[in-house]
Amino acid sequence: MAYLGGKKMRIATLSIGDELLCGQVTDTNAGVIAAALLDNGLRVQRHMAVGDNELDIMEALTDLHRNCDVIIATGGLGPTVDDMTTHAVARATGRRLVVSEEARGHVQRMTEQMGIGSILTSPLADKQVMLPTKTTLIHNPTGTACGFHLIHNNCYMFFMPGVPSEMQLMLVDAVIPFLIERLPRRREIVCCRFNVFGPREAEVDELLRGIARPSSGLSLGICVGYPGMQITLRAEADSREESEALLAPSVSAVRRRLGAWLCSEGDETLAGKVAGLFRSRDQTLALAESCTGGMIAQMVTAVAGSSQYFQEGAITYSNTAKMRQLGVPFDLLNQHGAVSAEVATAMSRGIRAAAGSDVGLAVTGIAGPEGGTEEKPVGTVYISLSDGQGDCCRRYSFRGSREQIRIMTAWTALDRLRRHLQGTVVG
Amino acid sequence: MAYLGGKKMRIATLSIGDELLCGQVTDTNAGVIAAALLDNGLRVQRHMAVGDNELDIMEALTDLHRNCDVIIATGGLGPTVDDMTTHAVARATGRRLVVSEEARGHVQRMTEQMGIGSILTSPLADKQVMLPTKTTLIHNPTGTACGFHLIHNNCYMFFMPGVPSEMQLMLVDAVIPFLIERLPRRREIVCCRFNVFGPREAEVDELLRGIARPSSGLSLGICVGYPGMQITLRAEADSREESEALLAPSVSAVRRRLGAWLCSEGDETLAGKVAGLFRSRDQTLALAESCTGGMIAQMVTAVAGSSQYFQEGAITYSNTAKMRQLGVPFDLLNQHGAVSAEVATAMSRGIRAAAGSDVGLAVTGIAGPEGGTEEKPVGTVYISLSDGQGDCCRRYSFRGSREQIRIMTAWTALDRLRRHLQGTVVG
Repeated sequence: MAYLGGKKMRIATLSIGDELLCGQVTDTNAGVIAAALLDNGLRVQRHMAVGDNELDIMEALTDLHRNCDVIIATGGLGPTVDDMTTHAVARATGRRLVVSEEARGHVQRMTEQMGIGSILTSPLADKQVMLPTKTTLIHNPTGTACGFHLIHNNCYMFFMPGVPSEMQLMLVDAVIPFLIERLPRRREIVCCRFNVFGPREAEVDELLRGIARPSSGLSLGICVGYPGMQITLRAEADSREESEALLAPSVSAVRRRLGAWLCSEGDETLAGKVAGLFRSRDQTLALAESCTGGMIAQMVTAVAGSSQYFQEGAITYSNTAKMRQLGVPFDLLNQHGAVSAEVATAMSRGIRAAAGSDVGLAVTGIAGPEGGTEEKPVGTVYISLSDGQGDCCRRYSFRGSREQIRIMTAWTALDRLRRHLQGTVVG
Repeated sequence: MAYLGGKKMRIATLSIGDELLCGQVTDTNAGVIAAALLDNGLRVQRHMAVGDNELDIMEALTDLHRNCDVIIATGGLGPTVDDMTTHAVARATGRRLVVSEEARGHVQRMTEQMGIGSILTSPLADKQVMLPTKTTLIHNPTGTACGFHLIHNNCYMFFMPGVPSEMQLMLVDAVIPFLIERLPRRREIVCCRFNVFGPREAEVDELLRGIARPSSGLSLGICVGYPGMQITLRAEADSREESEALLAPSVSAVRRRLGAWLCSEGDETLAGKVAGLFRSRDQTLALAESCTGGMIAQMVTAVAGSSQYFQEGAITYSNTAKMRQLGVPFDLLNQHGAVSAEVATAMSRGIRAAAGSDVGLAVTGIAGPEGGTEEKPVGTVYISLSDGQGDCCRRYSFRGSREQIRIMTAWTALDRLRRHLQGTVVG
């Protein structure tokens, strides 16, 4: 506790492994550690990644230790020659490497348990039982590689294997409790996430101005994804009750201000929200897709239990399929073209009638890169929705690549369903 | 060029954004940059991520610039208050912020093009036209945020927006050519990428043993994705001719050894390969999907020009739809259940007959998490392929989440089409 001197704990994560710097493998450990710490009121200030190179690891530790109170490192503790972490730590902190009887016992037990008895007879295995002096072992309940931690110039350093499942257990069992115990003052954090589709970042920023009051412990983060956006409201106080009391009024305010832009909250996807709305209204859906080629149905059926409301989909790429599956009249196709409000409406009516569903949704458009005309350029899309009351068809102009146009079409179509069911179809 | 002093170029990447340190968003930019550089013979030595905090960004730049010759940074160039990068760069490098007429012109043109004319009237927009002195603008062809680069104490620094699609264009158009020109000794690298679906990493490793000869400049990388795997063969020599001569015999060897596992090469996807095979044989396809709910059709139609061979798809989630759209007899559904070889075969025959296509492909299965039985547990899937010669239906048992089972089913179905058309359907 002394080392903190009452200051905020500055935490860094360090991922070690050549594969992380080749674009081959995405580093998920850093995110998992950051999220787990945040749930406990601890914030990662800096993340670093280096390859399996002794000098690079040493430099990284030296740099991080200059700015941070805590370093949580993963990777490079395996038995093979390219696992360098333990050596680098010993050199960077001026310690000798010695055989740890505790580590030897662990490796022996684990190899017996895992039925890979030969590992201890190999010279490589020696690596996993050598630890720097004056370190404390971190038990790894599911693998042979022990973790360890040490204090160097008032900096707490933790080293864990890079295997995500092993690392996560050790993080939760050992690292986080250790840190929390040493926190000068435990802060309780509660979050609420809002998923938004439609507005630009600047619009949301404008809309939510004044909600965050960092001095009072209330912060707001906007994360622009594609094509949606995620807004996180986070309250931080001394007790969970205080945090929740701080959060609640702002949650209402964010909901009110976002209005119809708000698709869903927390982990719920747009398709999940639509599923809930259909089920709660006991209504059914059928889809007719042209340019999205099944993307909407795929999003709908990604939600478990979607068969309760989703009846069927028709991917009618050819005109023949539009006529046969959906009953679109030949004259309509001939007169207005497959990409037209008339055909889109006939499609949504047709699939609704064929499937006998409450709602029929249809899309037809030009995803490109070929097929555009002056009157209907690439990105022209019609989305039509039919129910017992009537039809509603709208024209859109999307930009971007074929894939982006398809994604925008699919999201817009699902969002139309959401707004329709919520009764908030707006201009 | 002088700054390199004949040494290896030490390159760092820096990702800027609060969302990266909260576990909300996985940082894909770092991997994309590393992979693109590697294709050009440049290796990233260190990666760092910090939040949208002026002091943290300044510290990161100072630390990286101590060890590295090149810093490639992304993020924090947007118009909102939490975008801090430009300010931090100016302070860290001791420069003033001035209005860049070039940037202003760019923002104006882009907002006009994108039809969001109001942005320049907002005070936030001013941020995007201010750049540190003595910087060169990096053109962003698809977004409002300009990038810029500068030289500070012999360190080349590049700053680009964090939006992946924008960043990638700028990286390839501006950053990489700039670096390559300044490399002390240009090594010519040629690569060949092989996309594989089916075998485990250890099998591929075994299969390709001895192909890589690092001492001769020939290296092999295996990147395990999901559900496919990517193998990159890379030859490095003083001239392009030498590199190509080094690569060619090994490309043949890899092709031969991978055999039927090899789905496609380079940027071609599995669906792209299937499209080429259908078109070259002048055949047509129709799909009937149950558990994949449109995922196969969506993959097929992601390929531009797929309408030339893909006629239509039926997403028959309900039994009613299977009967009406595909003509599956009620007795068959009643006797064997919707997830059975009999129904799968009736589906692939049915869609082929209805669409009048050369090939009909159908899948039916239990994606879970509910719906499994002892006899047919979650993950049980039937894939059936019908053509003029007959039907071929096989049962599969996939593991994992609902989404994983759907992805494995869709990939396996497309790979069945590929092998069928290539005439290499194997046990």
